Amino acid sequence: MIVEMRAGANKEQVDHVVERAHSLGFDVQLNIGTEKTVVAILGSDTGKADTDLFAVLPGVQSVTRVMKPYKLASREFHPRASKMNVSGVEIGGQKIVVMAGPCAVESEKQLMEAAKGVQKLGASVVRGGAFKPRTSPFSFQGLGQDALKMLARVKSELGIPVITEVVDVNSIDAVEKHADIIQVGARNMQNFALLKALSGIKHPILLKRGLSATVTEWLTAADYLLSQGNRRVILCERGIRTFEDTVRFSLDITSIGVIKQASHLPVVVDPSHAAGHSAYVPSIAKAAIAAGADGLLIEVHPNPEEALVDGLQSLNFPAFERLMKDLRPIAEAVGRNV
Amino acid sequence: MIVEMRAGANKEQVDHVVERAHSLGFDVQLNIGTEKTVVAILGSDTGKADTDLFAVLPGVQSVTRVMKPYKLASREFHPRASKMNVSGVEIGGQKIVVMAGPCAVESEKQLMEAAKGVQKLGASVVRGGAFKPRTSPFSFQGLGQDALKMLARVKSELGIPVITEVVDVNSIDAVEKHADIIQVGARNMQNFALLKALSGIKHPILLKRGLSATVTEWLTAADYLLSQGNRRVILCERGIRTFEDTVRFSLDITSIGVIKQASHLPVVVDPSHAAGHSAYVPSIAKAAIAAGADGLLIEVHPNPEEALVDGLQSLNFPAFERLMKDLRPIAEAVGRNV
Amino acid sequence: MIVEMRAGANKEQVDHVVERAHSLGFDVQLNIGTEKTVVAILGSDTGKADTDLFAVLPGVQSVTRVMKPYKLASREFHPRASKMNVSGVEIGGQKIVVMAGPCAVESEKQLMEAAKGVQKLGASVVRGGAFKPRTSPFSFQGLGQDALKMLARVKSELGIPVITEVVDVNSIDAVEKHADIIQVGARNMQNFALLKALSGIKHPILLKRGLSATVTEWLTAADYLLSQGNRRVILCERGIRTFEDTVRFSLDITSIGVIKQASHLPVVVDPSHAAGHSAYVPSIAKAAIAAGADGLLIEVHPNPEEALVDGLQSLNFPAFERLMKDLRPIAEAVGRNV
Amino acid sequence: MIVEMRAGANKEQVDHVVERAHSLGFDVQLNIGTEKTVVAILGSDTGKADTDLFAVLPGVQSVTRVMKPYKLASREFHPRASKMNVSGVEIGGQKIVVMAGPCAVESEKQLMEAAKGVQKLGASVVRGGAFKPRTSPFSFQGLGQDALKMLARVKSELGIPVITEVVDVNSIDAVEKHADIIQVGARNMQNFALLKALSGIKHPILLKRGLSATVTEWLTAADYLLSQGNRRVILCERGIRTFEDTVRFSLDITSIGVIKQASHLPVVVDPSHAAGHSAYVPSIAKAAIAAGADGLLIEVHPNPEEALVDGLQSLNFPAFERLMKDLRPIAEAVGRNV
Repeated sequence: MIVEMRAGANKEQVDHVVERAHSLGFDVQLNIGTEKTVVAILGSDTGKADTDLFAVLPGVQSVTRVMKPYKLASREFHPRASKMNVSGVEIGGQKIVVMAGPCAVESEKQLMEAAKGVQKLGASVVRGGAFKPRTSPFSFQGLGQDALKMLARVKSELGIPVITEVVDVNSIDAVEKHADIIQVGARNMQNFALLKALSGIKHPILLKRGLSATVTEWLTAADYLLSQGNRRVILCERGIRTFEDTVRFSLDITSIGVIKQASHLPVVVDPSHAAGHSAYVPSIAKAAIAAGADGLLIEVHPNPEEALVDGLQSLNFPAFERLMKDLRPIAEAVGRNV
Repeated sequence: MIVEMRAGANKEQVDHVVERAHSLGFDVQLNIGTEKTVVAILGSDTGKADTDLFAVLPGVQSVTRVMKPYKLASREFHPRASKMNVSGVEIGGQKIVVMAGPCAVESEKQLMEAAKGVQKLGASVVRGGAFKPRTSPFSFQGLGQDALKMLARVKSELGIPVITEVVDVNSIDAVEKHADIIQVGARNMQNFALLKALSGIKHPILLKRGLSATVTEWLTAADYLLSQGNRRVILCERGIRTFEDTVRFSLDITSIGVIKQASHLPVVVDPSHAAGHSAYVPSIAKAAIAAGADGLLIEVHPNPEEALVDGLQSLNFPAFERLMKDLRPIAEAVGRNV
Repeated sequence: MIVEMRAGANKEQVDHVVERAHSLGFDVQLNIGTEKTVVAILGSDTGKADTDLFAVLPGVQSVTRVMKPYKLASREFHPRASKMNVSGVEIGGQKIVVMAGPCAVESEKQLMEAAKGVQKLGASVVRGGAFKPRTSPFSFQGLGQDALKMLARVKSELGIPVITEVVDVNSIDAVEKHADIIQVGARNMQNFALLKALSGIKHPILLKRGLSATVTEWLTAADYLLSQGNRRVILCERGIRTFEDTVRFSLDITSIGVIKQASHLPVVVDPSHAAGHSAYVPSIAKAAIAAGADGLLIEVHPNPEEALVDGLQSLNFPAFERLMKDLRPIAEAVGRNV
Repeated sequence: MIVEMRAGANKEQVDHVVERAHSLGFDVQLNIGTEKTVVAILGSDTGKADTDLFAVLPGVQSVTRVMKPYKLASREFHPRASKMNVSGVEIGGQKIVVMAGPCAVESEKQLMEAAKGVQKLGASVVRGGAFKPRTSPFSFQGLGQDALKMLARVKSELGIPVITEVVDVNSIDAVEKHADIIQVGARNMQNFALLKALSGIKHPILLKRGLSATVTEWLTAADYLLSQGNRRVILCERGIRTFEDTVRFSLDITSIGVIKQASHLPVVVDPSHAAGHSAYVPSIAKAAIAAGADGLLIEVHPNPEEALVDGLQSLNFPAFERLMKDLRPIAEAVGRNV
């Protein structure tokens, strides 16, 4: 249930609503806007509570039931698009944010070379996998802690924020210490234990869409991250599983428009994992920006043909340079810049 | 098998290749380019024939086996992108072609009003369904012959080409008489009897992707249309069936990039049927142009809320005007214009 | 709208309901049971008509709106399971009907050998494709008219009914003349022109499920076949398109239970096309019978490794014999026999 | 790489193969059969090693590369079907194992009532969720530790093994203490951190198929569980995500036959989660046994209409009794018993 306070409602009135909710056994979350405050009333039994319980309270303008399973990620709770500052980079704002780098951190040399390259060509965030969730237990699983330290060095030397994936609850501390943005991978989108643990931390979280998750399930997973107070959640569309076999996954371009209407959270697109082949990355990346995405997450490798993981889908520097150049006029065409 | 002739090969040498193919029981198709000629050797048994049978002939530069099931739609047969002139409108060229109009022709007044409206706002082709393939036999099935005559009147009065769908072999003659482009609907993409019949006619054909067809199956269906000499085939991506339930179909944006590499045929996008809701049409339409599509097929209705078919997904004139305005800078950003 | 007459309602009362429907511009279909008659009121505008228009008429027991898009295929219209006699073979009855034979008729010798073989091993109907809908125009398209005549000979010599596919309106006459059951293939499930034409004929129709059709769409396609009075429609589940890649299609075993509740039509299963590999056919076939299917459509070829079409998924005689033997106790376990 | 030793090979010869593998930097696993020993050579670089390195060693019969990504779950490594004893119940043997009980443990009374009911009616294992992975953070999340204790009481009082789900690494200890079989849910099938942790424990693991996992990915996830020596892995097919909308998931019946050929692991079927509706459970359950499944995992609740979770898909006692009765002749028809 969403309780929208009047424009001039005072703190006492808001507190009153919160107390009433608590007295009924519900949790609350507040969206304190510059003009008005919105109170989300949360709990598995809100459906049984009468909206009048809140509508009659002083300072309340309206009470709405949100029929969708997600509440905190919804536009009803937070009517304006969320912008978030991540180590000096704004996500969800006027500028399209490009996060680029290798799929996996392979060595300090490879990472530093990739980071310098993408930074020079216009990327605002460096990506690099330390813990790699691999389909087979016998595949390269990432450099782990060592890779985290290399990422930290990139961050301190180049002054650029870094993003990396966390794959289990026990490595959150380490990732938190070294990374600016924490990524939840597609296969963990409904790893609820991990989501709950991440909800309590301060770092912004990039939540990849599960490969067969509906947009509704994805936004409901975001509610897990938002449920303990973490406000900085970034969605990442990375393709869904379909019958089509010329690409690894089918990028669901429509999800951008759907999310922009249903949710306030920023959404970025990962064209590399969707396509599974670098040849298709530019076309998808351009489409994503035109569709309204707030950013891109792109795999770039100094030597794709020598990459330990996902070389086929990584751009080399010249291809990344060309793409950045091509993205600029498209960003401008939709009133933004890269 | 694709036989590429040398740049200076003469007609006699080409004829020799053709004769050899015929003598082996194969069919052939020629792509006579300005610089060189390419001969497609066709038949179910080409896989058993040795490439040397052709490689040794005078004037032959190379012989390639096309491992994909489609041959005539492939870039191997026709390395350059196909451009086609349709009643004065070029498709596959520098200009993005917008085809717009109502899902179904409902009356002369509705059609004329829609046609004038979209023409004024920049559409190059008017669309309107005369025969409607409907899921239920008890739904409105279209005005049939009467609608075809109304389309013909639009064409003669407004001087704009029209496109309409054909749903069975027996109405090809009538559709051919009144329409400029003939559409094959998604549910008929593998109606091979219909495809064969259309392969023999002169009209350009717009082939919609089947809702669960792979790109490979789609291009192989195009081969049916191309197999009897019809060269003007336009592909139309209209969304595929997935598990996602906020939209009717998931537009496969990746297919644009895949087709541009694998095939020479132009490809347009139908954002209206994919989304199933007008609110999502602009985002998809913009993405399509950025991804490299050659045109759009958009449902526009003077009064969407009164439409007999698909009102929810139709744009009204103000929304279409806004979209056309938004498409211009994106088209320019990819080096084209609307 | 479904109008259920009282048990003792007389013909005059039924006629009255029919006349009222006609006067309102609706079509009707009657299900005249031994106990009571049910009248289906059909048309695109029945949703706007008040149920009281019929409820007040003498002899009417109840009036129900069927919210599903299909009406004639529904249990609401026809509460009892339909059984149908096909040239002496009952489909939908106590006995599981096995239809078997080669994917394509290749020669009189091959067909006769296959027919004799499957008949001897317990098949009640012989299958064989005369017109083959093939993905590529350069693949073997079937022997056409010649194959129909061979099927007719099998029928007359062996006294066993035959089933074959029709792929376009113009060959219905020929197929009707030589076959006992006419098959509509998966790719034509929504070829509405073909369905309408078949609705007017007397032959029973086997309607394969489209490879991405929902059960609801499939039953609505059946309504096309039933709409002009043809009562003998057999549904055939043959697998749906999913992401799974060890088989060609994923057999939707759940559809059997869903159909048995929602529809009165008999349903058979084609394990051969679903699996795409003979090794998986027995497991699926046994599951189908246990789930409640009324029959099987199985590809059997005297020499699968020499088959022109679908050899990989065809059983040879020893494998078919083993399967028939294995099916018997399962059929008995569900109260039926093979 | 799979190294098959000769029938009479002695321990020294096997050790030699193991040493050679270790010296090359590979891991190994042994399948010590009664007749012969098979050695799996494991590691991300086995593809680069020559098979002759092992073929020349004394006692080696053959060396095979397994091109599939899974090795330990494959029939190549373990040619005979695996049978496993779970607290006195054999899984993968002649008897079909029925595991039944409520989706979630709601109270001691509810659990005990359900457990007694299903035990009396023939279930061999009691299921009950303590930790519930729920789509929304505001839904009932299970009774946790309390539920585990209730399950332990069921086990000690009724002498029947219990199965429950583990959702994160940190609760493995608790689950291990109270349960006989540990379940990994569909949404955690590729939670590799959890799989790795479970690989080191002694308990048998039931691994549910991810809702969009291919059979190959599923078996490769099983390799994670098998990689540290846990040998008792049970697969559980529970339906895959498709476009069909009359059921929650489409049970992939074909996967049973595919797994029986590709893997030695036992496979059970969960008809309740697939169907999402109790009305369809019996049809699927019967099909599963006929297809060759080794068991069933069924939701049974004393009062489905009062269930906190998944009431719609739970059977009540009379329905479960009927089902058990119907399963018996089908099990016998495939040479087994319930």
